[in-house]
Amino acid sequence: MRLIDKANTPLKRGRPGYDQESVLRIAVEAFNEHGYEATSMGKLADRLGISKSAIYHHVPSKEDLLRLALDEALIPLEAVIIEVRAHQGSADERLDFFLRATFRILISKRSYVTLLLRLRGNTELERAALERRRAMDRQLAELVTAAQSEGELRADLDPRATARLLFGLINSVVDWFREDGPIEAKTLEDQAITLLFDGLHSTGA
Amino acid sequence: MRLIDKANTPLKRGRPGYDQESVLRIAVEAFNEHGYEATSMGKLADRLGISKSAIYHHVPSKEDLLRLALDEALIPLEAVIIEVRAHQGSADERLDFFLRATFRILISKRSYVTLLLRLRGNTELERAALERRRAMDRQLAELVTAAQSEGELRADLDPRATARLLFGLINSVVDWFREDGPIEAKTLEDQAITLLFDGLHSTGA
Repeated sequence: MRLIDKANTPLKRGRPGYDQESVLRIAVEAFNEHGYEATSMGKLADRLGISKSAIYHHVPSKEDLLRLALDEALIPLEAVIIEVRAHQGSADERLDFFLRATFRILISKRSYVTLLLRLRGNTELERAALERRRAMDRQLAELVTAAQSEGELRADLDPRATARLLFGLINSVVDWFREDGPIEAKTLEDQAITLLFDGLHSTGA
Repeated sequence: MRLIDKANTPLKRGRPGYDQESVLRIAVEAFNEHGYEATSMGKLADRLGISKSAIYHHVPSKEDLLRLALDEALIPLEAVIIEVRAHQGSADERLDFFLRATFRILISKRSYVTLLLRLRGNTELERAALERRRAMDRQLAELVTAAQSEGELRADLDPRATARLLFGLINSVVDWFREDGPIEAKTLEDQAITLLFDGLHSTGA
């Protein structure tokens, strides 16, 4: 076969044409439905309708699937921190930006974030991912402290507890938000931000 | 042995004296660490240091352990709804009561609530528990609607989404709160309630 033919004629492989990305996506669905530990490579192969050795063609081990999946969530979330640091606004504006950017990643990377949020720290890899989450908690707590110093945030809230509670509310959307549900992502983002900054009692800006 | 002796002399059984409650507590720890599906009765027996047949003396099946564990969380949470209905105050006061009472159960029943929050609906039992959670979501959404009607809550928040977000923030404490941590449960409860009702921007009552 000449190279020109190869480029113009996609090879037919006689089985579903999985690439690493789609193997990963389906693996994460299985991990989220049954738990990471309960999902063996054999069960995953059954789900994909391919052999175990065909999975190993895409990824060397189940732990590598977990590593790739966690990076799908962690890398964009960590990029937000870098963007926040480069942001020129007040701490209050940076806090707004941080929470909204995080919210959008949760929606776009929902299944990967769900996996991340359910980790228990049973292995070195899981503990490293949890440490990366804690670094985000610290970053958010620092932002709360800075906004309190600038006088824009109420001073009677503990920054570390507040950071955890803010993430708690924002993260919870991965459990129930559906693209085809009754509320749009942008509306939900605005409502979550309004609730957090202004509270249930505020009568509006 | 006469009854009087029996009462005064505890029987020595020659192995750890588990009762159903302690078997349940240890089972839930295992479910939370490794996932319900990945925790076989054999693994549970190893963890308890007893035989599988000794576990079956306490509980007929793994699913019965799950049922008992979920009821440990669901029964007190559902009791809150009944208390809220009997509460004589305004919708706003009932909302405050609902959130605080829920928070306290999350703290006191932490491991059982963690298990409940991680359910995926893979079996009839899991789906029934999720339906009981949804009933609580609806109850909270109704309370938000009532407080909006009474003019005490801002009217631009969607009640159903708000109910989910409120539970999201409150529920998140099970993931990180520790009795021996830097913040006390009562302080955290007050901070969460302040954040939700008054928002980050409020300068205080």
